[in-house]
Amino acid sequence: MKLASLKSGRDGQLVVVNRALTHCVPVPHIAPTMQAALDRWSATEPLLRKLAAALESGKQSDARPFDARECAAPLPRAYHWADGSAYVNHIELVRKAHDAEMPASFWTDPLIYQGGSDDLLGACDDVPFVSEEHGIDLEAEVGVITDAVPMGITPDEVPPHIVLLVLINDWTLRNLVPAELAKGFGFYQSKPATAFSPVAITPDELRDAWREGKVHLPLASFVNDQPLGQPNAGVDMTFDFHRIVAHAARTRRLGAGTIVGSGTVSNVDRSTGSSCLAERRTLEVLEFGTQRTPFLSFGDRVRIQMRDAAGASLFGEINQQVVSFHPPPRLAKDSHG
Amino acid sequence: MKLASLKSGRDGQLVVVNRALTHCVPVPHIAPTMQAALDRWSATEPLLRKLAAALESGKQSDARPFDARECAAPLPRAYHWADGSAYVNHIELVRKAHDAEMPASFWTDPLIYQGGSDDLLGACDDVPFVSEEHGIDLEAEVGVITDAVPMGITPDEVPPHIVLLVLINDWTLRNLVPAELAKGFGFYQSKPATAFSPVAITPDELRDAWREGKVHLPLASFVNDQPLGQPNAGVDMTFDFHRIVAHAARTRRLGAGTIVGSGTVSNVDRSTGSSCLAERRTLEVLEFGTQRTPFLSFGDRVRIQMRDAAGASLFGEINQQVVSFHPPPRLAKDSHG
Repeated sequence: MKLASLKSGRDGQLVVVNRALTHCVPVPHIAPTMQAALDRWSATEPLLRKLAAALESGKQSDARPFDARECAAPLPRAYHWADGSAYVNHIELVRKAHDAEMPASFWTDPLIYQGGSDDLLGACDDVPFVSEEHGIDLEAEVGVITDAVPMGITPDEVPPHIVLLVLINDWTLRNLVPAELAKGFGFYQSKPATAFSPVAITPDELRDAWREGKVHLPLASFVNDQPLGQPNAGVDMTFDFHRIVAHAARTRRLGAGTIVGSGTVSNVDRSTGSSCLAERRTLEVLEFGTQRTPFLSFGDRVRIQMRDAAGASLFGEINQQVVSFHPPPRLAKDSHG
Repeated sequence: MKLASLKSGRDGQLVVVNRALTHCVPVPHIAPTMQAALDRWSATEPLLRKLAAALESGKQSDARPFDARECAAPLPRAYHWADGSAYVNHIELVRKAHDAEMPASFWTDPLIYQGGSDDLLGACDDVPFVSEEHGIDLEAEVGVITDAVPMGITPDEVPPHIVLLVLINDWTLRNLVPAELAKGFGFYQSKPATAFSPVAITPDELRDAWREGKVHLPLASFVNDQPLGQPNAGVDMTFDFHRIVAHAARTRRLGAGTIVGSGTVSNVDRSTGSSCLAERRTLEVLEFGTQRTPFLSFGDRVRIQMRDAAGASLFGEINQQVVSFHPPPRLAKDSHG
């Protein structure tokens, strides 16, 4: 089953989308919003699945064309967005470039940071940034959305709580990262609003590509239509989603609609490319002694996509343009006056 | 005006509370929940104020007794909970005890971490913890709740966006802090669910005690009815709320209902006591060479209170018992089988 939130008010309008991503159906009689569906998932899921089956078999007469550009994030705002950093080889690589030792515990103890969840971007939304000097970078990731998760759950108990999967662009301001890392309080200004794929899908949509808490498919990223990388999200994922979710729930409950990210997808086999510019720049330093690829500029476009073995898009495409932030008139006036 | 959320469903039922905290009135015709009121604050605020005035003058016939024990957190779940660390003398003190140098930038660049907002505790809720070995500690704070805040706002532009004030107990697991600080990704497992005062109040309720983005009143904390401290929240606050909110909004918008905390309230004048056990223990080490006060144990009770100059409780009291977490039966069975 595939679900999306069409832009409407602050929380979007929940729709069921067909597998081919060509048509959708609003479901106000089941749940007006994605959050409402997740809050009562055991009741809403069977109804949504029944409707999805009818849509798939062409029996849903109120189906309308689906357009990813009309999509908000599946959860336009969420109560919890926690991003793991599960591809530890990526962290080790980036630290090496800075001659910084990575603690050995990073291989055994999951890393996680809490992201801003009150403003999540749709797949085709422009992304406004204050300054190119901040070092604008993408981070292509996969993520899961959970129902309510009890405190103290073990990894083995996590699978039924993972109800949806998404693609994520965890926008990052690289030049603000070192100071925030040094403070130890986590990323804040360096992590502006995060973007999500047009649709969220139930794990069964991946068939056997979803196993052991990992998505065993390549995640393709493009900058201005040039391939950046297509590492396999199921390879070199040190901590699977079952472990990351259990880690997150060790000392507290997780609310329904918690989004947990994988961190930047990265394979030890560097021929698969990268999922962020920071990693590519690190590889350039190691190979050429200098960074060759700049961070993003206003006007640049980023696309993130995952296809199944037959080439079909699973989540629709994240396709965003980096734009210059223009403060509202009142602010602009004040700052010049 | 004083508002609260009575326990009801996941998001509580919004009520207007009288100044004496003895009576309240549900307001479903204005907004069913606190979040709904905040989402349309410019429309709902005048209606809520009108009702509050009627309640205050005894003209609200449907008023019912108000009981803090029936309160959820003002926002039982929120989209954004960001905690500053504005009393820098507190950080300097605690670091000194560990022989750790505090970066000089901490005096000029606000510290902030993003907390879990999907599960916020009511003022009288028991607080379940997995283990006493984690070093259970309170942190008494004041906090603000904002409406929607534009990206790039300056401190001068913040005041109208601060619409409510609350008291906060930012529960902390001290023994999990060092490892999370060392990782640099911020606090996660060390910050379980946060608790809030029974009522949230509009800034005008504080009269001239709310000025320059600070609350100029003592914040009193008690452990098992023994006073822990009563530092003045308006003294030694290095970064006022205007600066912290502007810092939070530097690279992103803040959604309506964003909660921003002050961090542990602390005065350079140590005779005012402390707002957390970690600070008291640090002072004991400096004075006696050893820690005398233990962290909290199951069964301990914490109270946090702020009174006006006449002795009236402004927010109602946070009054919570620390209890042992008992996993749900399924989990218990699995972990033993």
